[in-house]
Amino acid sequence: MDTKKYAPGIVKYIPFLYVVWADNLLSASEISVFKKAVENDTLTQAEKDRVNSWLRPGNPPEDEVITSWKQLIDASGVKLLESDNYPLTAFSQRLFSNENDGSGPDENLKFIEINLGIQPNHYRHLFDVRTDKVPTTDFYDPLQIDLVLKGAHAPHIDKFRKLLSDPLFQWNIQRDKDAFRIRTLEQVKLLASHGYGAMAYDKAYGGIGNMPAYAGIFENLMYVDGSLTIKFGVQFGLFGGSIQNLGTKKHHDQWLKATGEAKILGCFAMTETGHGSNVRGIKTTATYVRETGTIVIDTPGKNDNKEYIGNALHARMATVFAQLIVNGTNEGVHAILVPVRDENGDLMPGVRIEDNGYKLGLNGVDNGKIWFSNVSVPRENLLDRFGRIDGNGNYQSDISNPNKRFFTMLGTLVGGRICVAKGALSGAKMALAIAVKYALYRRQFNSGEKVQEDLIMDYPSHQLRLIAPIALTYVYHITLDHMIRSYASSTEETRRQTETQAAALKALITDFSNTTIQECREACGGKGYLLENRIGDLKNDVDIFTTFEGDNTVLLQLAAKGVLTDFKSEFNSDHFGDILKLLGTQLSDRLTTFNPLFTNNTDKDHLFDPGFHLEALQYRTRRLTFTAASRIRSYLKKGVPSQQVSLNIQTHLITLGKTYGAMLSYEIFSGFVENMADKRLQFLFRKLGALYALMYIRDNAAWYLEHGYISSNKSKAIRQRVERLCTELRPHVASLVDGYGIPEHCLTAPIGKK
Amino acid sequence: MDTKKYAPGIVKYIPFLYVVWADNLLSASEISVFKKAVENDTLTQAEKDRVNSWLRPGNPPEDEVITSWKQLIDASGVKLLESDNYPLTAFSQRLFSNENDGSGPDENLKFIEINLGIQPNHYRHLFDVRTDKVPTTDFYDPLQIDLVLKGAHAPHIDKFRKLLSDPLFQWNIQRDKDAFRIRTLEQVKLLASHGYGAMAYDKAYGGIGNMPAYAGIFENLMYVDGSLTIKFGVQFGLFGGSIQNLGTKKHHDQWLKATGEAKILGCFAMTETGHGSNVRGIKTTATYVRETGTIVIDTPGKNDNKEYIGNALHARMATVFAQLIVNGTNEGVHAILVPVRDENGDLMPGVRIEDNGYKLGLNGVDNGKIWFSNVSVPRENLLDRFGRIDGNGNYQSDISNPNKRFFTMLGTLVGGRICVAKGALSGAKMALAIAVKYALYRRQFNSGEKVQEDLIMDYPSHQLRLIAPIALTYVYHITLDHMIRSYASSTEETRRQTETQAAALKALITDFSNTTIQECREACGGKGYLLENRIGDLKNDVDIFTTFEGDNTVLLQLAAKGVLTDFKSEFNSDHFGDILKLLGTQLSDRLTTFNPLFTNNTDKDHLFDPGFHLEALQYRTRRLTFTAASRIRSYLKKGVPSQQVSLNIQTHLITLGKTYGAMLSYEIFSGFVENMADKRLQFLFRKLGALYALMYIRDNAAWYLEHGYISSNKSKAIRQRVERLCTELRPHVASLVDGYGIPEHCLTAPIGKK
Repeated sequence: MDTKKYAPGIVKYIPFLYVVWADNLLSASEISVFKKAVENDTLTQAEKDRVNSWLRPGNPPEDEVITSWKQLIDASGVKLLESDNYPLTAFSQRLFSNENDGSGPDENLKFIEINLGIQPNHYRHLFDVRTDKVPTTDFYDPLQIDLVLKGAHAPHIDKFRKLLSDPLFQWNIQRDKDAFRIRTLEQVKLLASHGYGAMAYDKAYGGIGNMPAYAGIFENLMYVDGSLTIKFGVQFGLFGGSIQNLGTKKHHDQWLKATGEAKILGCFAMTETGHGSNVRGIKTTATYVRETGTIVIDTPGKNDNKEYIGNALHARMATVFAQLIVNGTNEGVHAILVPVRDENGDLMPGVRIEDNGYKLGLNGVDNGKIWFSNVSVPRENLLDRFGRIDGNGNYQSDISNPNKRFFTMLGTLVGGRICVAKGALSGAKMALAIAVKYALYRRQFNSGEKVQEDLIMDYPSHQLRLIAPIALTYVYHITLDHMIRSYASSTEETRRQTETQAAALKALITDFSNTTIQECREACGGKGYLLENRIGDLKNDVDIFTTFEGDNTVLLQLAAKGVLTDFKSEFNSDHFGDILKLLGTQLSDRLTTFNPLFTNNTDKDHLFDPGFHLEALQYRTRRLTFTAASRIRSYLKKGVPSQQVSLNIQTHLITLGKTYGAMLSYEIFSGFVENMADKRLQFLFRKLGALYALMYIRDNAAWYLEHGYISSNKSKAIRQRVERLCTELRPHVASLVDGYGIPEHCLTAPIGKK
Repeated sequence: MDTKKYAPGIVKYIPFLYVVWADNLLSASEISVFKKAVENDTLTQAEKDRVNSWLRPGNPPEDEVITSWKQLIDASGVKLLESDNYPLTAFSQRLFSNENDGSGPDENLKFIEINLGIQPNHYRHLFDVRTDKVPTTDFYDPLQIDLVLKGAHAPHIDKFRKLLSDPLFQWNIQRDKDAFRIRTLEQVKLLASHGYGAMAYDKAYGGIGNMPAYAGIFENLMYVDGSLTIKFGVQFGLFGGSIQNLGTKKHHDQWLKATGEAKILGCFAMTETGHGSNVRGIKTTATYVRETGTIVIDTPGKNDNKEYIGNALHARMATVFAQLIVNGTNEGVHAILVPVRDENGDLMPGVRIEDNGYKLGLNGVDNGKIWFSNVSVPRENLLDRFGRIDGNGNYQSDISNPNKRFFTMLGTLVGGRICVAKGALSGAKMALAIAVKYALYRRQFNSGEKVQEDLIMDYPSHQLRLIAPIALTYVYHITLDHMIRSYASSTEETRRQTETQAAALKALITDFSNTTIQECREACGGKGYLLENRIGDLKNDVDIFTTFEGDNTVLLQLAAKGVLTDFKSEFNSDHFGDILKLLGTQLSDRLTTFNPLFTNNTDKDHLFDPGFHLEALQYRTRRLTFTAASRIRSYLKKGVPSQQVSLNIQTHLITLGKTYGAMLSYEIFSGFVENMADKRLQFLFRKLGALYALMYIRDNAAWYLEHGYISSNKSKAIRQRVERLCTELRPHVASLVDGYGIPEHCLTAPIGKK
């Protein structure tokens, strides 16, 4: 290099200056990083002044100066070595000394390289590069990351993952539903024989009474197969769970152990053809006949059959939800245990079951329709924790309001929703792992001057496509693990809130998972379309997660209504109107007085600040809640009927439900990260959180702009920061997907193996 | 009704006033509609003043007044009859006179009802309603709509649709790929026997030389099956098209007729495992051996095989793309006809073909990998329209630049891209037709006071989900039909522009189609997940349309680069830098001086004005083009290598590609609509165009807000207008999906039949 032009102490900064100005993205906090390094250097004051003169954001160096730097670097003949720990630092030192003096990295340069997050893919095209063999770093240990994700369930999960190497769990292409169902049933039985079915039940029934651990192994099942996951969930979670949560000791004693061992197969017969989302409106009747002490189950009309019932072709028992009629009074929806097949597998009299046939995915699950024609069962088969028929044949319940009773029953089943979200998330993780592994060896296109083409992982669009959703998987994983624990420890008082939260998260995360799997399919091109590469099945299996255990559109409205109820009960409801008016004034004041220093703040430190993220998410949730409440009130005051009000603001409610879920996830995740013991990992997790939050604001920038919460410049800066964060996380992308802990024997996709 | 409180002439306006104020959405042009009706009425001036006093947007009637209207209406006992042609008008007249005097609708009320687009689902919950039997109107005749869409190809399409009722085209569930492929091949042969394979070829080869008509029947094939569509396209479009477009008369004479008759089956062997999107980088060699006058085809490395080649398991011939080496010089990629099987179907010596196996969809298409080991073919097999080997064994071409030659060859194949987009769009139409038909009888939830639940078509979220994409299908249909015609009539000069346009539209429309089919699946809940209901296969089949015939991410960048090239060549390139600077100044001036009357204009007339839509789309395209050009220039000036520049602005280019495609579609569509002869249909199509454009602005509101192009209020108003437009189109939704003209015998989905 032409050392005559610049003093040696300055020369070493030239590559940094070049990269920074070629990239054109310096915020105040980034400049301060650079300046701090220069300040700590042993340069003369004049030299420092010279370097600092190139660090004025409003006044960048002339193009000619920048180009001359490039020419100096090119002329030096020094090559950049990507495998160096601090490649740009080492490169700059070699430029300076023309040899590596073995003294290790220059601390000041290293300080800049680390704190600006400059990555080889930012600048590798700028210099003459000796390409790495390994296109990722092992700075973070995937095993350590996996430990964080497994949390308290690590011993269970580790043992379980080993079991999954059993040949019975080896994935293969399944096209025939009947063969597939038989295999899936065998898998379920094998898991039961190892005690996994009963995990959430009490010890007396073969379990360990640990719902969160059950959920932890459940989500790992997705790495084997979606059908297995769902059939397992139907048998032990839905059918077994209905006995556990809606039944009483006599039911537990009689059925729970055999259910956990898969010796009695059961199904959960709630949905009807005519009533998918509106469970309260189901038509099946369960009429108590005092004379015989029996309950008669009947399907009144042709569309009132149970529909899409998993395990229907294998089950001996069904938990049937029906309108319970006692002494001529409809006591609302209750659950009754009804034998549907005898020990030989033949249908019981009055029961008709039809195969639902081929589905888009999950063809290893035997879904069917069930009709009942005056089927009698003993009174004792009523799962009577919340409502019973006494010895005199009279109905009794501790919850007198039928509505409240119905929702109390449903509420106990919320664990299933959290599990569904966990399963979907595993699908997204698996697809991401495959797509990332492929992107780390697949090359496409080049500059025309090089022999080797670029790794597709180094394309910005590919980074956005894969790395941003990886950040979301981490946030959602921590969130769901927290949720399942708070569900397991919930009381009847806190359950309504858990329900609101689970509804929002189930919808949000299953939608996210589907979108992500689709991105992964496209990111793998034609290879992603081959079934052998697994993404196809994940896509088709997870697809229906948006519909079952509560249609997402319905759940988001449910969540929003829960938020509104909380909001209303926060205040004395007598003066709710006045309070709304007051809040409105405060919010509008707030709106017009948003501090321009805040709305215009595009500095990196601010944009990465969890305080900013939380405030942005909470502000939107609060504001959408308030405006929804105001709109409802205003419609009601004009005499608009309440069902019409719900319709009028339906899209508003859906947005509120989503926003609430996004906020909740970040609250849980950022709280978790603050308490992480491993500071090195904490740094990584903070970045994941920042990417999550900035993605959220970016995706909803129109709203934030409309409300003056961010300025145009801030909106643009957030978009740029999202891309930068993806680049900063790029070297760790292999560790991040390995950190999911997907067992090697489950990752069978050929494109995931190179 | 309490006629004492209001004069009779006023009473009839009360229901309108109530609906309007309960809805809270009156813009200036809507008020003027109302006022105009009142002005034309025979009321006294005092009465007019009274009504007008309730029509002040900034000063709405008190809640007490509004509620009293509701009470008056309720007390009247008059019922609303949805099946009336103008339900609100008729209802109001009955309120007024307490009997229908048979004089027909009041012209002034009717004027308001039509021009405000008030629909029963706006207000049916407000009044006591006698529910319709038919929840849609037949105001528009689907046959008339279909005629518009079929355009000049109507006779061909009508005849073709009848043929599709042949039992061989009856859809059924296919799980076994081998059986499926055989059936698909039979279907292709049947179509060929009717002359449909050859349609785009000249008369001498059994065709009618009509590429647009070919594309018209191609898109109808999707209603039968995706695999059939693609296998048909591979045989006649890609294989036959390569002979037609890249070959010369000797090739046409020898092969084209038999190809069109499917007597010779062929495949199009371009993509290699190692080179999906980067065709120029393929590794297969075609070496001319002067001594024998033959060309030797060879696959050099293990990943250099032809990959994912459709028809590979059935084909006798392959058009092989390879690096042509003549006298030791690589002349770039050329296409050579290579026999791969003999007449008995046995592989030719040196040819190896492997099945690609099961895919996510399109399992009726036999995709395979092909390796060549020094396979010799006569010199004449070179498809030599753009480059030939003369009698002396020397290479000759009229296009001396190898790059230009390569792109000229590829350019002739652009028709395939347009067809792919058409096929994807048909998939979206079919899914929408099924989902809409289902939503028109499926009911879910109710107000708790009524027996009947609401049609899911009447939920605002469902309308947004289905009606907005219906509008887009209409815009894209007209656009693609225009495109295929301009492709068919393109010259070598105009072809580059056609290519840019086709690249953007293929990416945009295949992405849209996938998203739409997914929405339809979810909109049909669990029913949508059953294969018998067709949406599943559509989803899996159309999925890969985003990847083949050009990966969408790559195509969007290609389109953007085309736009930038045009932009640059618009100006004298010597002074391009100065021009950019000048344009920059103009644009910034423009930016700071956006007329607030424009950026704040939320009036309905303005928001529905095609001029506004066009300007918004063009402004964004222009601005993104300009900023991309400026960024490129700025990077280049700093010495950043051009490949790195492309990476740095990759996401910018992708956005530009999408925006360009969106603008182009609206330009073509709005031009088409302005020339429609049927004014009644024109009115409908204008609404579809408005919904398309407002959806675009809504989805990109962050950008428009950032650039000060719209104010916050305008952004909100656009969001509301989108929802309103969906509501206004709601009564016509059945006509709109029937207007696609999908043959009844193809619509086999049970949920599409009720």
